Amino acid sequence: MRIAVLTFDGFNEIDSFVASHILNRVPDRDWRAEITSDVARVTSLYGVVVDAQQPLSFAREADVVLVGSGLRSHEIANDSKLLATLGLDPDRQLIGSQCSGALILAGLGLLADMPVCTDARTRPSVEAAGVEVLDQAFFARGNVASAGGCLTAETLAAWVIWRLKGRDEAERALRRVSPVGEEHASIERVLARIQPYV
Amino acid sequence: MRIAVLTFDGFNEIDSFVASHILNRVPDRDWRAEITSDVARVTSLYGVVVDAQQPLSFAREADVVLVGSGLRSHEIANDSKLLATLGLDPDRQLIGSQCSGALILAGLGLLADMPVCTDARTRPSVEAAGVEVLDQAFFARGNVASAGGCLTAETLAAWVIWRLKGRDEAERALRRVSPVGEEHASIERVLARIQPYV
Repeated sequence: MRIAVLTFDGFNEIDSFVASHILNRVPDRDWRAEITSDVARVTSLYGVVVDAQQPLSFAREADVVLVGSGLRSHEIANDSKLLATLGLDPDRQLIGSQCSGALILAGLGLLADMPVCTDARTRPSVEAAGVEVLDQAFFARGNVASAGGCLTAETLAAWVIWRLKGRDEAERALRRVSPVGEEHASIERVLARIQPYV
Repeated sequence: MRIAVLTFDGFNEIDSFVASHILNRVPDRDWRAEITSDVARVTSLYGVVVDAQQPLSFAREADVVLVGSGLRSHEIANDSKLLATLGLDPDRQLIGSQCSGALILAGLGLLADMPVCTDARTRPSVEAAGVEVLDQAFFARGNVASAGGCLTAETLAAWVIWRLKGRDEAERALRRVSPVGEEHASIERVLARIQPYV
């Protein structure tokens, strides 16, 4: 599985790196999550400069596309040229957003009649786009998922693993990163968020 | 406050970026967490290349030093020249480790008679170094703290904020990143880990 973690200038480091790290823990040779960007060197919200691992055109061919949040989400959601380059297709791809990434899913027309999760700050903009926002951390319908609150990024990653490799593999991936001594409660909390939608 | 997030080749992305992101949310002009490395461009465990924001010599002058985990922790813990360059001093700095970063704290001689938290994989090596490992996510004594399990990185960041800016500011920083709809329980869980040690 090839996984594109869409990462634009002004990106939130937690969103892009928690999801990509957990996904890369799946012990499959052909399973790889990569930082995917429209620029070769992408700068985070707090000035961390990272080399993109894939160009934006990779999103179209990836099996999974995750859209993190960042300062440019509003702008990108209205950039029809960039959205067309993405060429996402929920019939053949799993697609997930984190926080303000929901605006980009809305811009792509993926949220018709579908509620989403997002962060409190982005909520008014998503609602202004005519999309219902849920007061919960995670929601999915079919191949499209959304998460609200950066520290829900592990749930988005676990949803991808559950969908493609099953619940047990998702549990194993979470076990490797869970707080020591609290593994059971931590894993159950994440899996309970996903359970209603798989 | 100047905060050095020590990041070496083979680093764990969650450890370095969850802590630095949360710390950078503190709304103080002079408060800044930076990726600090012995190389100008540092490569993560999963091949993400990041520009260092500070050289290793920054660790000596920083007010706070956090040591993430990574593939080189064993090697660094035995590299007396590199450890001397760090020049850490718990009398004037807050120092924290995440997972295998505990090996580096042990190498620095900071864990004399002090138990630590680390991940299950690193535990035998830390115990072999004569250090007691706790079956819990977080521990601190005085100015030295340790966390076990990548997803405890938010606790290490919150401990730093609590120690330097008070409990309310730590709570505010956590609120901005907590899972939507679960904010109260999530924040309380993190603060309860820290409470016994501040």
